[in-house]
Amino acid sequence: MEKVTVIGVAGGSASGKTTIVNELRKNFENDIVVLCHDYYYKSHTNLRLEERAKLNYDHPNAFDTNIMIDHLKALIKGETIKRPVYDYTIHDRSSEEVIVQAKKVIVVDGILVLDNQELRDLMDIKIFVETDDDERLVRRIRRDAIERGRSLESILDQYETTVKPMHDQFVEPSKKYADIIIPRGGENKIAIEMIVENIKKRI
Amino acid sequence: MEKVTVIGVAGGSASGKTTIVNELRKNFENDIVVLCHDYYYKSHTNLRLEERAKLNYDHPNAFDTNIMIDHLKALIKGETIKRPVYDYTIHDRSSEEVIVQAKKVIVVDGILVLDNQELRDLMDIKIFVETDDDERLVRRIRRDAIERGRSLESILDQYETTVKPMHDQFVEPSKKYADIIIPRGGENKIAIEMIVENIKKRI
Repeated sequence: MEKVTVIGVAGGSASGKTTIVNELRKNFENDIVVLCHDYYYKSHTNLRLEERAKLNYDHPNAFDTNIMIDHLKALIKGETIKRPVYDYTIHDRSSEEVIVQAKKVIVVDGILVLDNQELRDLMDIKIFVETDDDERLVRRIRRDAIERGRSLESILDQYETTVKPMHDQFVEPSKKYADIIIPRGGENKIAIEMIVENIKKRI
Repeated sequence: MEKVTVIGVAGGSASGKTTIVNELRKNFENDIVVLCHDYYYKSHTNLRLEERAKLNYDHPNAFDTNIMIDHLKALIKGETIKRPVYDYTIHDRSSEEVIVQAKKVIVVDGILVLDNQELRDLMDIKIFVETDDDERLVRRIRRDAIERGRSLESILDQYETTVKPMHDQFVEPSKKYADIIIPRGGENKIAIEMIVENIKKRI
């Protein structure tokens, strides 16, 4: 069995996690697989669309983390998994699945991936991306309003009712479990260089 | 001229900077030199001892940072310098000087080394050691009361009047300039491993 390195990338909403993950993808090309916590949003087919839209998607209980942990353990063993697909347009799990093959580098990405101890204990390197709260809000408004066409009122309302309180209660406190904290997210070349070098030495 | 790497290590009082610096010393042995900001505390021979004891030693103006910058520039050029020595027992600069020879790895260490832009611009890697404020206070009380024999009242008084306000005003905000932030200070093996590897690749 090949040596596998698991990297957790946590941090608040719009902190720059994806930029970091993309840099890792660029460096490890065919040797990397990314498991996003968002793939594992719980299914709520019993609720109506309007009800599903109002759920708290930033609480640890919004995710089927146990399934993610099982999948991660399987990938570490070199097994192939079928991961769920989440469909944001219907706020529910899609009927599709995606076949994911084991790779040498496994990235576990999501705002809350350092909050869960069992998940954390499977990671070799724990990263927290730290970006100012207001800077993250600016990015989130840009992304949701411009790229996703959502109304400004619904974006700000969600920010105040779930995104911010869950960040303060669960995301920010999970920072203390990180091995390194990356300020200024994806623009931080030196931190990314250090992480890439360290992974290369491990695999 | 040899390639030189300059590493800044900042962080609050008793955050674990020295442990990190000692780990770097262990790894680079004869190739490393450490320049502490504390060596460059201003001389106050015009003041009486009681007056000197009451000065604010946590403000950027407490240091002759310009001399430190000149010394750092000289070391980067491969020159030998004579650095000042600070004598804590008399709260003043000693009459001694220490001859410091240029090395491949230069560490610049101190609570405020990321606060000064000119100093910052000379660094290749900027590190901020982050430890909870109350944990730092515990360590500081232990160090000052047990190792340095100071009275508890004077330790707490200094903490409230200068250490904490200067930390909040200057030290903590300088964190944003760091390339990486190290939580849990010196106990953090993965972060230290990453930094050591990165320096090795540079020199």
